[in-house]
Amino acid sequence: MSFASDNIAGASPEIIAAISAANAGRQPSYGADGISTRLTQLMCDLFEREVAIFPVVSGTAANALALSCLVPPWGVVFCHADAHIEVDECAAPELITGGAKLAALPGAHGKIQPETILARLGQYRRGDQHQPQPAAISITQSSEWGTVYSKREVEAFGELARSQNLALHMDGARFANALVSTNAAPADITWRAGVDILSFGATKNGAMMAEAIVVFDPKKAETLPFRRKRAGHLISKMRFVSAQLEAYLSGGLMMRNAAHANAMAKRLADGLCALPGVELACPVEANGVFIHLPSPMAQGLADRGHVFYPWGALAGRPDAIVYRLVTAFDTPAELVDDFLGDAKACVVGEASV
Amino acid sequence: MSFASDNIAGASPEIIAAISAANAGRQPSYGADGISTRLTQLMCDLFEREVAIFPVVSGTAANALALSCLVPPWGVVFCHADAHIEVDECAAPELITGGAKLAALPGAHGKIQPETILARLGQYRRGDQHQPQPAAISITQSSEWGTVYSKREVEAFGELARSQNLALHMDGARFANALVSTNAAPADITWRAGVDILSFGATKNGAMMAEAIVVFDPKKAETLPFRRKRAGHLISKMRFVSAQLEAYLSGGLMMRNAAHANAMAKRLADGLCALPGVELACPVEANGVFIHLPSPMAQGLADRGHVFYPWGALAGRPDAIVYRLVTAFDTPAELVDDFLGDAKACVVGEASV
Amino acid sequence: MSFASDNIAGASPEIIAAISAANAGRQPSYGADGISTRLTQLMCDLFEREVAIFPVVSGTAANALALSCLVPPWGVVFCHADAHIEVDECAAPELITGGAKLAALPGAHGKIQPETILARLGQYRRGDQHQPQPAAISITQSSEWGTVYSKREVEAFGELARSQNLALHMDGARFANALVSTNAAPADITWRAGVDILSFGATKNGAMMAEAIVVFDPKKAETLPFRRKRAGHLISKMRFVSAQLEAYLSGGLMMRNAAHANAMAKRLADGLCALPGVELACPVEANGVFIHLPSPMAQGLADRGHVFYPWGALAGRPDAIVYRLVTAFDTPAELVDDFLGDAKACVVGEASV
Amino acid sequence: MSFASDNIAGASPEIIAAISAANAGRQPSYGADGISTRLTQLMCDLFEREVAIFPVVSGTAANALALSCLVPPWGVVFCHADAHIEVDECAAPELITGGAKLAALPGAHGKIQPETILARLGQYRRGDQHQPQPAAISITQSSEWGTVYSKREVEAFGELARSQNLALHMDGARFANALVSTNAAPADITWRAGVDILSFGATKNGAMMAEAIVVFDPKKAETLPFRRKRAGHLISKMRFVSAQLEAYLSGGLMMRNAAHANAMAKRLADGLCALPGVELACPVEANGVFIHLPSPMAQGLADRGHVFYPWGALAGRPDAIVYRLVTAFDTPAELVDDFLGDAKACVVGEASV
Repeated sequence: MSFASDNIAGASPEIIAAISAANAGRQPSYGADGISTRLTQLMCDLFEREVAIFPVVSGTAANALALSCLVPPWGVVFCHADAHIEVDECAAPELITGGAKLAALPGAHGKIQPETILARLGQYRRGDQHQPQPAAISITQSSEWGTVYSKREVEAFGELARSQNLALHMDGARFANALVSTNAAPADITWRAGVDILSFGATKNGAMMAEAIVVFDPKKAETLPFRRKRAGHLISKMRFVSAQLEAYLSGGLMMRNAAHANAMAKRLADGLCALPGVELACPVEANGVFIHLPSPMAQGLADRGHVFYPWGALAGRPDAIVYRLVTAFDTPAELVDDFLGDAKACVVGEASV
Repeated sequence: MSFASDNIAGASPEIIAAISAANAGRQPSYGADGISTRLTQLMCDLFEREVAIFPVVSGTAANALALSCLVPPWGVVFCHADAHIEVDECAAPELITGGAKLAALPGAHGKIQPETILARLGQYRRGDQHQPQPAAISITQSSEWGTVYSKREVEAFGELARSQNLALHMDGARFANALVSTNAAPADITWRAGVDILSFGATKNGAMMAEAIVVFDPKKAETLPFRRKRAGHLISKMRFVSAQLEAYLSGGLMMRNAAHANAMAKRLADGLCALPGVELACPVEANGVFIHLPSPMAQGLADRGHVFYPWGALAGRPDAIVYRLVTAFDTPAELVDDFLGDAKACVVGEASV
Repeated sequence: MSFASDNIAGASPEIIAAISAANAGRQPSYGADGISTRLTQLMCDLFEREVAIFPVVSGTAANALALSCLVPPWGVVFCHADAHIEVDECAAPELITGGAKLAALPGAHGKIQPETILARLGQYRRGDQHQPQPAAISITQSSEWGTVYSKREVEAFGELARSQNLALHMDGARFANALVSTNAAPADITWRAGVDILSFGATKNGAMMAEAIVVFDPKKAETLPFRRKRAGHLISKMRFVSAQLEAYLSGGLMMRNAAHANAMAKRLADGLCALPGVELACPVEANGVFIHLPSPMAQGLADRGHVFYPWGALAGRPDAIVYRLVTAFDTPAELVDDFLGDAKACVVGEASV
Repeated sequence: MSFASDNIAGASPEIIAAISAANAGRQPSYGADGISTRLTQLMCDLFEREVAIFPVVSGTAANALALSCLVPPWGVVFCHADAHIEVDECAAPELITGGAKLAALPGAHGKIQPETILARLGQYRRGDQHQPQPAAISITQSSEWGTVYSKREVEAFGELARSQNLALHMDGARFANALVSTNAAPADITWRAGVDILSFGATKNGAMMAEAIVVFDPKKAETLPFRRKRAGHLISKMRFVSAQLEAYLSGGLMMRNAAHANAMAKRLADGLCALPGVELACPVEANGVFIHLPSPMAQGLADRGHVFYPWGALAGRPDAIVYRLVTAFDTPAELVDDFLGDAKACVVGEASV
């Protein structure tokens, strides 16, 4: 399976252990259990303020429910054209918000720029009943192209949002990888920078199925209990979701897992970039490597059983296929090195022809 | 916690073990893993035919998604007034179906009668654009009042559905308890009786969070992959849901758990009914006891730390409060006996006054 | 066509004339025209306060849009089981509110009682995320059975709504008929009694296609411009809707039309009640007569070309068919008298057999 | 008001006369009247085949309801970035389809190209549950920039739709202007070219409020009666909508009105283009002139009381403001000539400085 996705990994042993431990005895259901209470405190500690949290089991649920708290059914959400909410959630945001629109915008390396949003805002007449109304910005941290918004960059979105009366959502399916990459405090690249609601992901970084909607302004969460339940996302034996998140936030697991995944991506990229004809499509800032490989190399790696997917092409060079290689919390360094060895062999093989 | 709910239980050790075992190695995501493949075969075996299955993590999701395959947004679903879809899902069916209506009908002991539906059908003009259109029947097996539809009773709904051009959905959040109670083959009280889609519940009977939408006519499932995903209910590391269901269907766990829960309910009911002033509201056919307790007894039990909830009143006697006592796969016989002992003590105490 | 419906009538000549007059010259579109401005003032005068109004072309649109301002998608609207929103709008409220539920309640003569709602409210746990949440009451004035809520009765709903934190909507598709019947000031049986939003009907009482959503608390109307547009109910050449309503509110047309329709219903009912075997199902308080006719009479009238529809049965007597006879602003007294003559002939005919 | 919009016009006298005439006598409601029956026949004649038609009162309603018959709630509709459904309907398509997405594509002169759609299609994985699914193309005829798709161009969309398994919708809010412009048979630029459903507009071209959803394949219309009603768009006194459309299709009114509007646009454009510094943004093919005016001219015209709006800028020249000037069926030639005279005066004035 190699580098096909971070969803092919299982869960960290600590997560499995936490689930086993959570199984002891009877507990109130639907989040009234002791683990869920402790989890809320851990989240408040992590973000250095009171937060309201709503654990769910999928990132799509977290994103769509978060947006539904931020925009009216006729609202517009500005996001990157490659954002997960736009291309990989089968119109879940549209369903859960009651019909809001996504305005998908271009941007290099999977990142949108505030000025792109600002320019697009010029197309809308605010308050004009004929038009969908600008309502929120959603940014993905780390992005779908393995890049990361710096603290300063997130702040710029916060300022734009505030000045334009928009809400700011962060899809943090790979939030931990961005934390490692930016070395920023969680508070600093979220609410202090202007983020209203964060989809806090854990599944891709070692949990089994656990995400949390983190609402920084509890006022904005008032309807969320009802929204979550009517989407079928209130888990009855909630302790088993909360236990994953508790373990994830304890003993440094979150950062340790993300640091490893990021390091493996770096190792993979560094090794590949040393080979002829290889070219990065984006900087490697998290756990994804988006890279052009010469086609004999790509073919040779596939022939040797490595699995990875094409992900577009180099900017301005439609024939130069870019591949996505994703590392995870459990990617062995040996797997990376084997891959690099095979890649090198493909070069040699090619040369020898 | 005693008898407050079957959601306060944890999971069967077999389920936890299965999750641990499922954690080995890399697996394709989103249901393409080997466990999910085996699970499908197990379900086909259980139901003695090819079925399409869609694992999800909540009963609300299973029900709402199932209904969305069976009714148009202007459809009417006939169900019991106390059905979970009507009173305990925060309008999830309305959201997921795009606006369908539930016609909530009365019925003794939590069960609707075909003739009640037939009478209600008279209110609708089929094909008249002004009216919501009759589209489906949903029955709960076992019911919200701990009763069970016999094979013959399910067949009667199947006949009604067929003759009236309605679909038939079964909310089987406690399906296993009904299997034990009726001793019927799963096929006989579902598709052979006319059920189109079953919400197959496992969570309340020992799983952690695992339900399956079981579609007997694969044609009716064509849109379900998209519907599930856009509701945020496609789990990325699906193996961890499928593993629960695989363990549940293996080695007799499902039936063993349900048999125990049912037996504990019977033991509880029998013991209570021997006491003066106690009166069953319904026959005890699954894992719930719905029973009137004299108020000194109810108070005395609560004072001794037992937890259980009021659930209406005896028919025609609004002052005679009925309590719901729910047993689970892991309810110790000792807990039942302690409860009975305390109940008896309340009688003695009362008598001695 | 006789007494089949008040929708089979055309429009009052004054309405047609107003449309012709409105055709002169160019006018800003979408309600910024002079007629629409004058209309708003007329409505403020009628209701003795500032109101926000939103003309639309159907009662279904008015009702569904009004409710969408008053309830969340998981809200419950309490209404009569025979309410137009429940039985004759093909689930439009569900679509436009985003999935709210109607709780359809029984009540004699097409009217619900506050105590019925109060009793039903006991079924809901307020603030409990599992449940749809009580949000609004909708009453129909005059009702679907030709009866009318008195000022005192509307006030009772207002008090209930206020004390239970519910909104109060009035479906006034036949509001003018109720005004005539109660002789109450429009303000007194709407906002002074606690009504939040009124669906103000004109079509059935002489307009061509014109209703107005009248919002008494302008705050509650803030989202309505967007809601109306996204339902496709913002009319571009709005002057032609507003002109109808202006004419309707001018020169006494509204009250004159309704008074005539009510009088014709009274004349019809009085005449019929003098015949043997005839029995009213409800008091005749507006422009509908709901009446049991002996079946030879019903058959004889149909044979003579009169058109009217069955509408249920007398309470407790399922074999005694009740017919609905609706009069309109333009029902000629001669048509009533012919009908009565034919009805009498049916009696004679029957006797002579 | 000059050239602000085609919605500022009233209705043709023939339309008003038809409404008056339709007022005679009682008629069955909801479209069962004689006028509606005749209208269907007229539409069948116009399109040289059997069609199902659904009159409504707004173009937004026609478009959203049409699309809801063609795409699932997770479907994608490909349209121009300036399409009315994308920018001027306040997310009505999203509401009425239940959450479908619009993929807004660029294209010169308000027209999309099949190859643009084809390229975009490459972004979607058909049948992949994670993604919204390509479902329909919607083109506007004539376009939002006053241009027209030729018969051959429409056919190219038809071929693309067929080959890609997409439905084809035509927003014909200004369909008559395109008929005049292309001189094509209605059948040839709709169903014979592959159009599945047409939003047939009449309001902008002389009706009061009347559009028709024209469904060429009656199978695709099976759910439309329910969809229309639940959106509140079934008009009770339907004869008054049908009468407008009947008059519109009779005696050459449709073509006469459109021909006049187109001719006035041509006269306006020709006159303006003769002046220095003026530049067309698009060919003038229908009733809209999209044109750059030097800013002293634009200012001078405004000062003289002419009303018209900015509509973007010349391609590649962001400072060269383009104005939209819309003519209508009733635009007097004198008004055009006055405008031209004033424009010329502005040039003189400018020169004399």
